[in-house]
Amino acid sequence: MAAGDSVLLTDLYQLTMLQAYHRQNMADTAVFELFVRRLPPNRGFLLAAGLEQVLEYLENLQFTAAELDWLAASGRFSRDFIDYLATLRFAGEVHALPEGTVFFPNEPLLRITAPLPQAQLVESRLINLIHFETLIASKAARCVLAAPGKLLVDFGLRRAHGAEAGLLAARAAWLAGFAGTATVLAGMRFGIPIFGTMAHSLVQAHDREEDAFEHFAYAQPDNVVLLIDTYDTEAAAHKVVRLAPRLRARGIAIKGVRLDSGDIAELSRNVRRILDEGGLQTVTIFCSGDLDEFRLAELAAVQAPIDGYGIGTRLDISTDAPSLDCVYKLQEYAGVPRRKRSQHKATWPGRKQVYRQLAEDGALAGDWLCLEAHPHPGEPLLQPVMRAGHRLTEAESLDLVRERVHRQLAALPAALRANRTEPYPVVIAPELQALAAELDRLEH
Amino acid sequence: MAAGDSVLLTDLYQLTMLQAYHRQNMADTAVFELFVRRLPPNRGFLLAAGLEQVLEYLENLQFTAAELDWLAASGRFSRDFIDYLATLRFAGEVHALPEGTVFFPNEPLLRITAPLPQAQLVESRLINLIHFETLIASKAARCVLAAPGKLLVDFGLRRAHGAEAGLLAARAAWLAGFAGTATVLAGMRFGIPIFGTMAHSLVQAHDREEDAFEHFAYAQPDNVVLLIDTYDTEAAAHKVVRLAPRLRARGIAIKGVRLDSGDIAELSRNVRRILDEGGLQTVTIFCSGDLDEFRLAELAAVQAPIDGYGIGTRLDISTDAPSLDCVYKLQEYAGVPRRKRSQHKATWPGRKQVYRQLAEDGALAGDWLCLEAHPHPGEPLLQPVMRAGHRLTEAESLDLVRERVHRQLAALPAALRANRTEPYPVVIAPELQALAAELDRLEH
Repeated sequence: MAAGDSVLLTDLYQLTMLQAYHRQNMADTAVFELFVRRLPPNRGFLLAAGLEQVLEYLENLQFTAAELDWLAASGRFSRDFIDYLATLRFAGEVHALPEGTVFFPNEPLLRITAPLPQAQLVESRLINLIHFETLIASKAARCVLAAPGKLLVDFGLRRAHGAEAGLLAARAAWLAGFAGTATVLAGMRFGIPIFGTMAHSLVQAHDREEDAFEHFAYAQPDNVVLLIDTYDTEAAAHKVVRLAPRLRARGIAIKGVRLDSGDIAELSRNVRRILDEGGLQTVTIFCSGDLDEFRLAELAAVQAPIDGYGIGTRLDISTDAPSLDCVYKLQEYAGVPRRKRSQHKATWPGRKQVYRQLAEDGALAGDWLCLEAHPHPGEPLLQPVMRAGHRLTEAESLDLVRERVHRQLAALPAALRANRTEPYPVVIAPELQALAAELDRLEH
Repeated sequence: MAAGDSVLLTDLYQLTMLQAYHRQNMADTAVFELFVRRLPPNRGFLLAAGLEQVLEYLENLQFTAAELDWLAASGRFSRDFIDYLATLRFAGEVHALPEGTVFFPNEPLLRITAPLPQAQLVESRLINLIHFETLIASKAARCVLAAPGKLLVDFGLRRAHGAEAGLLAARAAWLAGFAGTATVLAGMRFGIPIFGTMAHSLVQAHDREEDAFEHFAYAQPDNVVLLIDTYDTEAAAHKVVRLAPRLRARGIAIKGVRLDSGDIAELSRNVRRILDEGGLQTVTIFCSGDLDEFRLAELAAVQAPIDGYGIGTRLDISTDAPSLDCVYKLQEYAGVPRRKRSQHKATWPGRKQVYRQLAEDGALAGDWLCLEAHPHPGEPLLQPVMRAGHRLTEAESLDLVRERVHRQLAALPAALRANRTEPYPVVIAPELQALAAELDRLEH
């Protein structure tokens, strides 16, 4: 069984709390909201992602016999409690921002309404899924904004943090607007276009670089992209020019070359000139190696003649901001709003909705964070997606999500697009502020 | 099937290169080595981890019928090549640093010797596994060094990058010397001790904080650790003091309290005083929240009266250095040493061994990176672990790995322990330097 499918991929305290809830018969309706407390440096916005994986998890949640046996043998739990866990399913409601929605701090992107134990148990995995995909989709969206018109491909699997990170990073980058990924399994699982060229090892395994190029072309005649930096990039570009007529005679066109090291702004110009002078104006230049949105913006600023980019480690890890301050907090229990007051970690209580205001030209003009019972004009962003543990609609197609992202990024105020120059206005509704103040007056 | 068990969790170029190798009958023996090119800032050493997962992967590597059908339908590959993939298994040799070995840049931690296609295909997943566990084990070792005698627990699952990262971070932290993890599945899969207290939601779900404490104690009488920062930390410490006699009357001892916010150096002192004055000298103080080795060192420097730490996000993501420059490079093919010469990315060619020198007191005194054919005095670090695709011994127990780490960290020169003040000497043997120079004179 995949680790992510196991209910035991959770923190022990979820189970110890469940045992306390069970003992006290605390099974009234709880409302938890998942949100990000603050933006990392450099980020002006975030892009919601991971909902589909969350819904799959909730639909399938149950303890296996082997897991129950192991828990029983641990000596931490009563037989009565283990028997109760055996029957536990998720039968609650989920409201969520649709994947690909732009959002901001304090805005819930997921709201779970369920009997307390069910809503509690799922915390660890829900954060684990939503945090990561949102992190990567947000990073990928910044790359898309930094390199308009360029072909962007996820190359990050090898240094992603484990198998699921590699697979879901491909998904998150695709929904944010990438052209595809190098990760084959993401093609099979999600239908994402896959891209691939060659590695240095193929060149090294041949005694002569030109033999490697030629053999690769015969084996992949429809996708001849040659890696030219193993020894000397410009010398290799000349070899590509010399090889082209021989391949053309066999009906094979060289599609592109790839650079992976050195000063790629300068090298790309020199290689472009060598290719053009050799009559290879249609051969594209694709670059990789330590790229991110900052580097893409620099290369765009100097108009480097590069057609596409493979973005690896810094995308799949979101290196400049590798985590979000993403939390899942109890906001209401048994009909009573709840508030955590810990220093610097206080929450806005109650079940909430986000209302988005749009300017006349469609640009995002500010959000209102409101109690659900006190609506506000604008577009309500949280949508019902699951009731009584069942989805309300089938899984959304990734093409639809990509269109949503495209529209929302186009509507993003300029101050948020690259390095945030001013925060996006999120108004805390007066009723919500009043409720928080009222709860703060309570003794606990 | 778990993503990590699929051969398709790889980069497309591995398959396109394999098709080229297949077409050219290039199946001679290849030697690839996996190493880290340079240390991240702040790191003085790295700790090898992930070998066990690599061996499992290699033993089980094969394409499923569904995967082969999908590849065939993609139109990228010939029928002949697909039939060849159906028979492909890993039948090579593996040499490796035992898990828990301290190592340095340019030193191979894994060497694969196999027919070229087999050794090529596994690149993406081998890096993906070794990179992540080594990253986290190295971070965890720094935490262990920064907090001698403290109970350290991995709390990072929720913000780890996906399911496998959460699970394997628990393993990596455990082998580096942590006392355990909050991740239940790591207990079941790897036998790692699991720890857990309660979340703020349990407190919030009760109208009165003291009721939450009392109910939790009844449900977990053997493990009463109370989270006291939901509203007012010091007020809650007084509630703990008032609750203790009532619990004692029922045979229940409070084991500890947990702080998760605010100035924990100051709060821990105040809470210690409140507990001590209330006769609760044996109740321990456990802290969590944005901790890492830097923060642990600060808290140790001011002698904060804290008994243990839960270390989450900054451990499971290795936030200050969330990736290593970890690569897998062809060093020999068909008996001929190979060298990549790309700018700033040149490699040391040939099959190599690392020899470690120890001072008289057992301290690490310097390593030699040598061609295997030219040994050097000292302890050879790379060990044979797999031959013809089969393990040479059964999986090493994590207890043995923990003992190795303990010994090696004790033998670490002071200059490498916290923030590196000088690099550890790794001598490139003269024969290796001569071979590299000779290859550089070759035309490719």
